[in-house]
Amino acid sequence: MVGDVFHRDCPARMVLDHVTSRWGVLILTALRDGDLRFSELREKIEGISEKMLSQTLRMLLRDGLVSRAVEPSTPPKVTYGLTTLGKGITEPLEGLSGWIRDHAPDILAAQASYDATGP
Amino acid sequence: MVGDVFHRDCPARMVLDHVTSRWGVLILTALRDGDLRFSELREKIEGISEKMLSQTLRMLLRDGLVSRAVEPSTPPKVTYGLTTLGKGITEPLEGLSGWIRDHAPDILAAQASYDATGP
Repeated sequence: MVGDVFHRDCPARMVLDHVTSRWGVLILTALRDGDLRFSELREKIEGISEKMLSQTLRMLLRDGLVSRAVEPSTPPKVTYGLTTLGKGITEPLEGLSGWIRDHAPDILAAQASYDATGP
Repeated sequence: MVGDVFHRDCPARMVLDHVTSRWGVLILTALRDGDLRFSELREKIEGISEKMLSQTLRMLLRDGLVSRAVEPSTPPKVTYGLTTLGKGITEPLEGLSGWIRDHAPDILAAQASYDATGP
């Protein structure tokens, strides 16, 4: 049951919900090239609100996928980065993003055809 | 821009939102082993409501990832299956699910530690 995503109470289902949440996948992908500050993440991920970025970062910190480092400067510099666990998941996520990049035109064509003629 | 998931108006971002929507990934994964009727999908994916299953199926039909076949019996038998495009995306999705199955215990442990001590 730990690994059955179809079960409501299965841990894997909860993890799947988190990493494929609207913003979770974008934050994990954004951190793939290196650590970023809160403001840099907000700038990179167009359309994310400050509230959603905070909430999703907290979820990913709790999941052990993202880490938070505070440099004791004035003002303190806070950066977010991937943990070893978080780095591990970016590989399958990158596989998914790569497929999507390659096939987005096919999906746009399917949508245009559906809208023109129905399913 | 077609392939930049970080841009708000990028097609790849829309596709990513669809296939990683709360139910989209579960429906695509459920159909991987063969065609299913509406009621069979509802039974397989615990916790999905009739409304969400309809809505998500319509989205995936429009995206060209899922097809719908009607057998002219009485009553007509309607089944849903993956298109060639839909079959293509189940491979990277399976990579992601596999990673999650393997690492769900690590994430549960991280959550317990976060809840006990803070980040």
